[in-house]
Amino acid sequence: MKKKIKKIAITGGTHGNELTGVFLINKFKNDPKLVKRDSFKTILMHANPKAIKKCTRYIDKDLNRSFAKKDLFNTEVYQYEDILAKTINVKLGPRGAKQTNVDFIIDLHSTTSNMGLSIVIDNNSKLTWQVAAYLKEKVPKINIFRWRGDLEDASFVNSITKDGFAIEVGAVPQGVLRADLFFETEKLINHILDFFEKLNYSKIKKKYKEIDIYDHIKLLDFPRDKKNNITAMIHPNLQDHDYIKIQKNDPLFVTLEGKVISYNEEKDVYALFVNEAAYYEKGFAMCLAEKKSIEL
Amino acid sequence: MKKKIKKIAITGGTHGNELTGVFLINKFKNDPKLVKRDSFKTILMHANPKAIKKCTRYIDKDLNRSFAKKDLFNTEVYQYEDILAKTINVKLGPRGAKQTNVDFIIDLHSTTSNMGLSIVIDNNSKLTWQVAAYLKEKVPKINIFRWRGDLEDASFVNSITKDGFAIEVGAVPQGVLRADLFFETEKLINHILDFFEKLNYSKIKKKYKEIDIYDHIKLLDFPRDKKNNITAMIHPNLQDHDYIKIQKNDPLFVTLEGKVISYNEEKDVYALFVNEAAYYEKGFAMCLAEKKSIEL
Repeated sequence: MKKKIKKIAITGGTHGNELTGVFLINKFKNDPKLVKRDSFKTILMHANPKAIKKCTRYIDKDLNRSFAKKDLFNTEVYQYEDILAKTINVKLGPRGAKQTNVDFIIDLHSTTSNMGLSIVIDNNSKLTWQVAAYLKEKVPKINIFRWRGDLEDASFVNSITKDGFAIEVGAVPQGVLRADLFFETEKLINHILDFFEKLNYSKIKKKYKEIDIYDHIKLLDFPRDKKNNITAMIHPNLQDHDYIKIQKNDPLFVTLEGKVISYNEEKDVYALFVNEAAYYEKGFAMCLAEKKSIEL
Repeated sequence: MKKKIKKIAITGGTHGNELTGVFLINKFKNDPKLVKRDSFKTILMHANPKAIKKCTRYIDKDLNRSFAKKDLFNTEVYQYEDILAKTINVKLGPRGAKQTNVDFIIDLHSTTSNMGLSIVIDNNSKLTWQVAAYLKEKVPKINIFRWRGDLEDASFVNSITKDGFAIEVGAVPQGVLRADLFFETEKLINHILDFFEKLNYSKIKKKYKEIDIYDHIKLLDFPRDKKNNITAMIHPNLQDHDYIKIQKNDPLFVTLEGKVISYNEEKDVYALFVNEAAYYEKGFAMCLAEKKSIEL
């Protein structure tokens, strides 16, 4: 990789009730040397200040689904997060420019699912995947999830730049700060910054050639009645067990009355984002993924 | 006890993002025989329908702090939950009447703290404590917490009637339904209904004489800076360990920078409601309580 990194951005509070990112940005703003490296600049940003103040995911709509090109360039969308997205796009991007204002975005998230330390990647950029592979080498317990949920157009904060990803940590309830995940997320950020520093000083000699990932297959909703009310819950065998392997006839849900609903497909899959609070309204109970090794 | 129980109320969704109660009321409304007993009537109520629809704790203010007499009889308070409280008070009470419309209120809650199955009692009524003691006998793992946080005047939903209490289950994030706690809460409700049925048929021969409880001492806030920003997190030793004993020099918090803040009082205490999301804005990181046996 010949690319020189000049500026990166760390964004937190993209969802205002995910406090790990909100408080890490607070910490770094109070003591910028923590994220300072000699060879590049680090920009710190609370992405959704109004939602952070209200400790809510968003004001009008999900900011982390507001960066699709069709919305960024649409003059007819102007809910709070649409306007915020356009502003952030100008600051960090603009998306699609040959030279964006920052070279890489690390977007900090937390989840009510027991996802441990996860990296969510929705692009195929070489640098992004080299960073992920470096991180996986440094912290083997992290899991890499390739998201393909946005069928038409990537719409995450980190899609403003060609390179970047989200860090997802859990389980942590919305509106709660957990010390263990706070410090573990900080360590991941430090490794990423170290990677860029080494890269700029040509100290990354290795090109990672493959990586183990969980690859998005589909999103699975809760069972619902005709009025769209949820009629079944995540089965206890799955609850708190993200990245679990699911085979035909394994229980997925249990109805409010206690009846078990099982997985009835032939293909073995893995369950991620199991029982994430914010996905109830989106209509997902979990993501199904396959486990594979991909070439980089 | 000579009192005959004619009507009881089960309320859920007093906080709209506490889904255990919301979905139990759904289940019971779909199949009322589940909560039907021969000798009394059971009223089912979603206490805050607007907050349930938005999956938020409240619209304008906490409904479960809106039943103080000074507010119920004050014509100058008219936020959404003030009006709701007055309406619920008419349906189930009115508070202070010699004969209220229902004799007992079971209010269903969940918490992001790892409180397991807990009963929160804020009155000294004999019947309430007999029910609690019966429940403790049937399900020994429940914990009884005597709340004394409202110094002037009880303001919970269940304070409309002389008798009643809240069931608090956790840990469960806001906006999440957990199957295990859902079914366990349902079992507790069944035991309570059985108690009233037996009581009405004079089949409760025993008078419980004492009970082990956690008795409220005080609420403890997070360390904060001059701008009221939280500067420290719950220490990992306490996180997920509600009902843990705390002695002098035990760690309570860890600052964002990693400095440990310890308990520095002589008296041994127990920590409850550790890191409950909804208490960040109220200014509590935990409740401190003492463990004791009280005479009934």
